[in-house]
Amino acid sequence: MAHTVETIAKALAARAEGDLSLPIDAAAEPAAAGPRDLALAMAPKYVESISQGHAQAALLHEGADWKALGLKAAIFVERPRLAMAGLSRAFDPGPDIAPGIHPSAVIDPSAEIGANAAIGPFVYIGKGAKIGPNARIASHVSIMEGARIGSDALIMNGVRIGARVVIGDRFIANPGASVGGDGFSFVTPEKSGIEEIRETLGHREAIREQHWTRIHSLGTVEIGNDVELGANATIDRGTVRATRVGSGTKIDNLVMIGHNVQVGEDCLFCSQVGVAGSTRIGNRVTLAGQVGVNDNIFIGDDVIAGGATKIFTNAPAGSVLLGYPAIKMENHVTAWKNIRRLTRLFAQVAELRETVAKLTEKGGKS
Amino acid sequence: MAHTVETIAKALAARAEGDLSLPIDAAAEPAAAGPRDLALAMAPKYVESISQGHAQAALLHEGADWKALGLKAAIFVERPRLAMAGLSRAFDPGPDIAPGIHPSAVIDPSAEIGANAAIGPFVYIGKGAKIGPNARIASHVSIMEGARIGSDALIMNGVRIGARVVIGDRFIANPGASVGGDGFSFVTPEKSGIEEIRETLGHREAIREQHWTRIHSLGTVEIGNDVELGANATIDRGTVRATRVGSGTKIDNLVMIGHNVQVGEDCLFCSQVGVAGSTRIGNRVTLAGQVGVNDNIFIGDDVIAGGATKIFTNAPAGSVLLGYPAIKMENHVTAWKNIRRLTRLFAQVAELRETVAKLTEKGGKS
Amino acid sequence: MAHTVETIAKALAARAEGDLSLPIDAAAEPAAAGPRDLALAMAPKYVESISQGHAQAALLHEGADWKALGLKAAIFVERPRLAMAGLSRAFDPGPDIAPGIHPSAVIDPSAEIGANAAIGPFVYIGKGAKIGPNARIASHVSIMEGARIGSDALIMNGVRIGARVVIGDRFIANPGASVGGDGFSFVTPEKSGIEEIRETLGHREAIREQHWTRIHSLGTVEIGNDVELGANATIDRGTVRATRVGSGTKIDNLVMIGHNVQVGEDCLFCSQVGVAGSTRIGNRVTLAGQVGVNDNIFIGDDVIAGGATKIFTNAPAGSVLLGYPAIKMENHVTAWKNIRRLTRLFAQVAELRETVAKLTEKGGKS
Repeated sequence: MAHTVETIAKALAARAEGDLSLPIDAAAEPAAAGPRDLALAMAPKYVESISQGHAQAALLHEGADWKALGLKAAIFVERPRLAMAGLSRAFDPGPDIAPGIHPSAVIDPSAEIGANAAIGPFVYIGKGAKIGPNARIASHVSIMEGARIGSDALIMNGVRIGARVVIGDRFIANPGASVGGDGFSFVTPEKSGIEEIRETLGHREAIREQHWTRIHSLGTVEIGNDVELGANATIDRGTVRATRVGSGTKIDNLVMIGHNVQVGEDCLFCSQVGVAGSTRIGNRVTLAGQVGVNDNIFIGDDVIAGGATKIFTNAPAGSVLLGYPAIKMENHVTAWKNIRRLTRLFAQVAELRETVAKLTEKGGKS
Repeated sequence: MAHTVETIAKALAARAEGDLSLPIDAAAEPAAAGPRDLALAMAPKYVESISQGHAQAALLHEGADWKALGLKAAIFVERPRLAMAGLSRAFDPGPDIAPGIHPSAVIDPSAEIGANAAIGPFVYIGKGAKIGPNARIASHVSIMEGARIGSDALIMNGVRIGARVVIGDRFIANPGASVGGDGFSFVTPEKSGIEEIRETLGHREAIREQHWTRIHSLGTVEIGNDVELGANATIDRGTVRATRVGSGTKIDNLVMIGHNVQVGEDCLFCSQVGVAGSTRIGNRVTLAGQVGVNDNIFIGDDVIAGGATKIFTNAPAGSVLLGYPAIKMENHVTAWKNIRRLTRLFAQVAELRETVAKLTEKGGKS
Repeated sequence: MAHTVETIAKALAARAEGDLSLPIDAAAEPAAAGPRDLALAMAPKYVESISQGHAQAALLHEGADWKALGLKAAIFVERPRLAMAGLSRAFDPGPDIAPGIHPSAVIDPSAEIGANAAIGPFVYIGKGAKIGPNARIASHVSIMEGARIGSDALIMNGVRIGARVVIGDRFIANPGASVGGDGFSFVTPEKSGIEEIRETLGHREAIREQHWTRIHSLGTVEIGNDVELGANATIDRGTVRATRVGSGTKIDNLVMIGHNVQVGEDCLFCSQVGVAGSTRIGNRVTLAGQVGVNDNIFIGDDVIAGGATKIFTNAPAGSVLLGYPAIKMENHVTAWKNIRRLTRLFAQVAELRETVAKLTEKGGKS
């Protein structure tokens, strides 16, 4: 990665000024930047700390006076976070996985590996699996029989891809993620307590002993293009049809997607989100960390749920939700404002009751 | 798996009509079914979509008119989910793990492996471990020294079984599950802030610096028969005695069972449930997704807790709980109905106060 | 491990009486103790059950009459949990990892492994990685290029250490933990719905289609000394600077530490805690199970948050928090007392309104 101010500006489609030939090795926060680092100083507070470091070039917000900052060159960006995307892509060395197939890897002879693969130590690829070109597969990954993965996959250490799972192009999976574990689906010979309280919202007749019989997962998992999966996240296979995740959807660490769930495109599920079985989720849905979504419900397009929202019922498209149980974000804020004023309200009502009792008494006397 | 309508009906102990010799390769949703698929059309809405597919045989609810649906054969069931259990078992090919021990596996000479084992690539089995007959162990599994596992185990890729863990028959573990990690148990030389606020419910005297000293986990984990464990779930070992999970209990993905916890039989713990250390849980307890259970408490038999319930105190047998903090499900529903009406209540009380103030004034004047 | 009452008392810096030469093999609960077990009977209820077992020696609270309990020797401790720390350390055999490097391990020639290493089967260590002396590394671990780990590490099966991660001395990682997965950081070309509702607390203008562009994680993870990490926990790498965890901090199973997060020293994060990106956490902060911490906020020193607390805003040093949203623990208790009394309050206000209406009417008549 031999970069200059000029090559980086080009990568960002951004305007640069000054000595465009300055060599750049890495990006750094301004105070920690060395002479071959590009200082990231898009926000005013970072501009001030440029003088604490040794950067000769910086990424600045349009209009900043780079010469006054003692810099030799500057790149100007409008939307800093977007610039970070291009910049971080340019500087990311990616994981070190040697080209070719490591001699310790066990790959079934019937598996098809695309061109330019880099497959690390202790990787196992099962019967009839198909991996597209340019795959980078780190150590200890298992890809079971019949799984199909598109081009340009980056699959990190210890990822588990189950049998017959189908995944699109440019898939990224972080360490320990599991696609295609068995769905959690059990049944009792007679109606179970859970089925009963779902109908009655809490009441139960006689409690019976009940053993759970397993419903095997015959379905698989189908994942679109450009999907990313966080470390130790899990996506279970469907019962008959496939569990599905649409193109462009990004899933963070320790997220759980249950069996039969259908997730749309361009969704963002932050860490520790859980989506229970058979729920359908639209496009561009954002679920913040620790959000929980009930089974067998429907979440419309463009829903946004704040941290730890627990969604029990269908959510119309465009809803902005918060709380347990989930309500409109603005109502949740109001609800807790009200709750915090309750002690005073109780006192006011007690006082009113006393006053009114006296008035009634007086009135009665009159 | 060469099935016919007849063999499937027998497997389900169900009544069939029509051409019982029809060959069946798989189960499918009606609209997607091919001519050798059994259409799953137990619910009325699915019956309607049979004509959109190409099924010649279907699984129907008792009383459905299969001839009018253009089918050549039908199997009739009373309780569809129960039928799915038998059907999915019949059609599940199971993971492809070659019989015998893969040459790459490392198995300590002192380990005992039962008859008919299928052990995949890169499996490690430690000193003195004992595995019962018919074990299927997928790639990258580690089973540490002295662990004992009963017959007919199915242990998927990358599962970790710790030293001296004892597990019954028919154990199923999904990818990445960990049994026998260290308990999370630390102590400070003097009373810690946590110990203090537990006694005072929130108040603290002077805050002290405190370093944590580790309490090692000498105990193990003991798991009964017919237990299933979800992907990336974790069960920690006990401090002195064993952490225990009773027979028939099913545990979903990303669940955490803390050290010393005692779980009864036939429980169902859905995804991302957390049970903190030393808590005892009865039989047939159902915890929905993301439920949290405090440490050192007792949950009685047959308790059902709805999604994301946070249980801080003992729960009597048969309770149906919801909310944070957990209260009876019906009270939680009432509580939030009330909370949503608070803004109106505040307005009413304000109005009352005004009216009563006027009345009092008038009364004072009179 | 050949122990006697005397060697154990020394290890605990505790006073012993009776036959100090009694051999002790293990620690046990009193009722289950054999003749070579040390009965753990520090609490009165355990003292009573000594007679149910066969222990000849016990760990007792100062002042207990060991002779009357039929014992041959006793060790006296003041703070039982602290004694457990020393005792459990003395009796813990540790995992069985053979000294040296297992022949199946793949270690890059440029990696440096310190003296006295024990490295198990199927371990992969990448280019230029440096591991300090006395490392114990169980099977299936991967340590990627350029990672540096201090002395006396204990890294259990299937742990993933990412490229360039830096870890101090005495690191303990339980099975499946992942350090250095990619941060979850994405950007849309135009302002996203999330950015908008953060500014407006719930309102949105027109909803736009939006695809997510990835911000690569160029930063790493830096971990201090004496840090422990639970099974399947995950710590993501930073965007530019490192994600940091201070010395002495203990992290339980399935915890998520997001990118750029800065965690102080001697913190305790219980199971399933989630800390979102770029948040700073002080020293000695205790987060109980399932606590969630918003991104980009600040948690002061010595904060304690009870189970499942959801912290959305900065928390001042020393706060004791509970609830969703997090409020002072004592206020949360009051809030739910008030909420449970609401049905009665609604009835009182309705009655008041009726009475006052009558009074007003009467007053109006007069």
